[in-house]
Amino acid sequence: MPQITVQELAALVGGQFVSEADGGRAITGAAALADAGAGHCTFFGNAKYLPQLKASRATAALVPLDLSEAISPVAIRVENPSLAFAKVLEKFAPEPIHFAPGVHPTAVIGRDVVLGENVSIQPFVVIEDGARIGANSVLGAHTYIGHAASVGADCHLAPRVTIGARCVLGNRVIIHSGAVLGSDGFGFEFAAGRHVKIPQTGIVQVDDDVEIGANVTIDRARFGRTWIQEGTKIDNLVQIAHNVVVGKHCIIVSQTGISGSTRLGNYVTLAGQVGVVGHIEIGDQTVVAAQSGVSKSLAPKQIVFGYPAMPLREAKEQLAYIGRLPKLYARVKKLEKNAVSPPDFPSET
Amino acid sequence: MPQITVQELAALVGGQFVSEADGGRAITGAAALADAGAGHCTFFGNAKYLPQLKASRATAALVPLDLSEAISPVAIRVENPSLAFAKVLEKFAPEPIHFAPGVHPTAVIGRDVVLGENVSIQPFVVIEDGARIGANSVLGAHTYIGHAASVGADCHLAPRVTIGARCVLGNRVIIHSGAVLGSDGFGFEFAAGRHVKIPQTGIVQVDDDVEIGANVTIDRARFGRTWIQEGTKIDNLVQIAHNVVVGKHCIIVSQTGISGSTRLGNYVTLAGQVGVVGHIEIGDQTVVAAQSGVSKSLAPKQIVFGYPAMPLREAKEQLAYIGRLPKLYARVKKLEKNAVSPPDFPSET
Amino acid sequence: MPQITVQELAALVGGQFVSEADGGRAITGAAALADAGAGHCTFFGNAKYLPQLKASRATAALVPLDLSEAISPVAIRVENPSLAFAKVLEKFAPEPIHFAPGVHPTAVIGRDVVLGENVSIQPFVVIEDGARIGANSVLGAHTYIGHAASVGADCHLAPRVTIGARCVLGNRVIIHSGAVLGSDGFGFEFAAGRHVKIPQTGIVQVDDDVEIGANVTIDRARFGRTWIQEGTKIDNLVQIAHNVVVGKHCIIVSQTGISGSTRLGNYVTLAGQVGVVGHIEIGDQTVVAAQSGVSKSLAPKQIVFGYPAMPLREAKEQLAYIGRLPKLYARVKKLEKNAVSPPDFPSET
Repeated sequence: MPQITVQELAALVGGQFVSEADGGRAITGAAALADAGAGHCTFFGNAKYLPQLKASRATAALVPLDLSEAISPVAIRVENPSLAFAKVLEKFAPEPIHFAPGVHPTAVIGRDVVLGENVSIQPFVVIEDGARIGANSVLGAHTYIGHAASVGADCHLAPRVTIGARCVLGNRVIIHSGAVLGSDGFGFEFAAGRHVKIPQTGIVQVDDDVEIGANVTIDRARFGRTWIQEGTKIDNLVQIAHNVVVGKHCIIVSQTGISGSTRLGNYVTLAGQVGVVGHIEIGDQTVVAAQSGVSKSLAPKQIVFGYPAMPLREAKEQLAYIGRLPKLYARVKKLEKNAVSPPDFPSET
Repeated sequence: MPQITVQELAALVGGQFVSEADGGRAITGAAALADAGAGHCTFFGNAKYLPQLKASRATAALVPLDLSEAISPVAIRVENPSLAFAKVLEKFAPEPIHFAPGVHPTAVIGRDVVLGENVSIQPFVVIEDGARIGANSVLGAHTYIGHAASVGADCHLAPRVTIGARCVLGNRVIIHSGAVLGSDGFGFEFAAGRHVKIPQTGIVQVDDDVEIGANVTIDRARFGRTWIQEGTKIDNLVQIAHNVVVGKHCIIVSQTGISGSTRLGNYVTLAGQVGVVGHIEIGDQTVVAAQSGVSKSLAPKQIVFGYPAMPLREAKEQLAYIGRLPKLYARVKKLEKNAVSPPDFPSET
Repeated sequence: MPQITVQELAALVGGQFVSEADGGRAITGAAALADAGAGHCTFFGNAKYLPQLKASRATAALVPLDLSEAISPVAIRVENPSLAFAKVLEKFAPEPIHFAPGVHPTAVIGRDVVLGENVSIQPFVVIEDGARIGANSVLGAHTYIGHAASVGADCHLAPRVTIGARCVLGNRVIIHSGAVLGSDGFGFEFAAGRHVKIPQTGIVQVDDDVEIGANVTIDRARFGRTWIQEGTKIDNLVQIAHNVVVGKHCIIVSQTGISGSTRLGNYVTLAGQVGVVGHIEIGDQTVVAAQSGVSKSLAPKQIVFGYPAMPLREAKEQLAYIGRLPKLYARVKKLEKNAVSPPDFPSET
């Protein structure tokens, strides 16, 4: 664990502190305001936390240049406390774990497997016949690479990832534990009172710089490919059905599900727990708010919300109208009370 | 990879093409319109894709008998392009992967385990004492079979499946990676300010011809069984709580959750991200639309939607009424404006 | 399998039965009314199941003291059938599975690993350098313990659990199959058209007596810790994002997701499929109903429901108002019909 002085900390972030006497105090870690204790450097980024800052037991705090209040930690003044804090974090970050190149003796490697330079194959990995692993890639313990699947260079697969047969990963792909790529698409024909399985013979293709969260499931295509394009980031427990295409640099937040054959453009954001029906298109840069249900294609650059999803402004307006219903009922009641009663005999003319 | 000529392709699907000169061109694969390139056979099934078809680089396309437009690929006319395409897909489908019978030397097999004929036990499988595996079943790498659990004949468990102690699978059951059958039901008693675990001593029983998706969780019963009946198909990331009974030939789409002790009839469909409360019954053939929340028992043959779920027609009507609220507010405002003002003194009589 | 007589059963639950002739009949198991057959003891807890009780093939049934109807099973009268049945269940519960202490020869144990007394390390477990496992803890097959991670005493990790580097578990923690603790938080900075990964250098800390369901995902903190406090119980497929703090003795039901940096107090209940946005606080003892979306901080002791979540009473009232909209539209139509038409020229004054 590194240790630096307040003086060194100030130098690191290009900040100022008042009392020279504080310069020698030891900083042994970095922590958020709520967690910081003796020895910690924290930061002050949001005015509503001022009371907590004042009472904090942290040894030092990065604060804005104009902070006038007296605080308990040593105040180190910087232009942008949040940005400066990132440097402190980096200083105190634990050593990244290095997985040494080599094939662990317990790994089971099939025939005709091609391993690139410096690959690290961890314990109990299974690589089936004909698969290829690119240079410098790490396959975590218990990971399974199916027949003729291909992993690019500089990839990091956490322990316990499943890559199905013939699936293809680009370079610098990161996949977290428990993710399953290449399970069968969910497709059945109904015949004679039973659901008969439709063969799912396609693959999953994941392009460069994609990151895929823990316990995500991405089904292989009915034929062709389910395709996650370059730079897209997928959070935990997301479901992506067969033949879906997710464009470049999309953000798909946790527990969202995308049904079969739907296509997302580039820079699309799906917030948490969103559901998207099959066979639609979502245009570039469109944002779908959390828990929404998308049942129709969306043009580019929309922001939608709701169930079913509609333009955000409209959805908010609708919520407001619903919120005012009690008053509307009262108004109608008043109108009825004051209305001249219609005559009691049929008045249709 | 197989390769056939346009002539052979036409014969395969019983179709016609015009120019004999095209008969010798090589077809090396099948692809959807959006993906098809040189050497591919594609198909035309939806009029809205006509512009894409005209410009497609595919070598051949299966088209309806009455298509009159000129298209770039060789047009092979058939009665039902979609159906015919299934034959082409089959032709070009990759060889299915065969897992040879036998027990991999790394597998750990407990005492009193009974293995049927021709079972294939892949690397790092663990089978605990007293478990039984039926003939011809495949247990994928890293799969875990708990004490005294039973897997039927002709089952296929993908890599990394967990079957808890004493759980029972029928024949021809397919389970995808990461699925967990037999985790403890979620049951606690609240006593002295703490949640005290209630023992979950039952099992999960899965009948013949069930398919279970990737990362699905099915909890064991409090006592007795959580029961998935014959022919039901369960998509990825579904949660099924303790003592649930799912009838025969149901379809449960991704990310749906069913709470404890609820019973589904036969041929029930739960679309994606549906939630169902505990201790209710859903009748035969009832369909619950995506993202709905079911809080009460449902009769057979209903179609329901919404949160809370109601008959689809009613739910749609309700959405329409909500959508027209802005106009309703305007109408009430107009009525108020035009109303004869009531006298300004108390008018209650 | 134990076997007892009706006489012994009655003694076990302190109950009475009428005919001595029945005393010697054999009871071989316990089952719910819907499942009970010959040899079983069942119980009668809910009047609506009386017809089923009458026709039950169970050998014995625990019934209330005042049941006057004739039933087919031997009626054993007790004060509280449900409570008494728990004793019967215990009697017939299968022997709990005992994992003998010791390190399976296939396990891969890193350098500087500290194993407490009587730990049971099952096949294919991987424990990385510097990790610590407390006394009497069981690590199920295929479980992965990352570098310098720490598992307390008397923990039970099911097969195939991932504990990331440096994560810390307290004592008596139970974790079910497929759970992933310590995957990277989902954090990116957008720069030059790409999402750039923000290092996630914190940990997950899980305190004493926590239980975590199958295929749950809990991300490590950006820095500091994602923290699950004492006695909290988490159901299957729940997502907990980086830097979330879940207080003591909370209940988090299946498929719920909590976004980054949100803090839950103690005794909070989140029902199934709830979504909670990031950076908010939910007060002690607050209950969020199923499928709700929480977008703002909540005070203690609230019961909320809906999307967005609001006080339960308000939400129910709102649903009622929405349900009555067809009638409201009719009332407004009637008012319009009966209204004196305003003059046809501009009437603004």
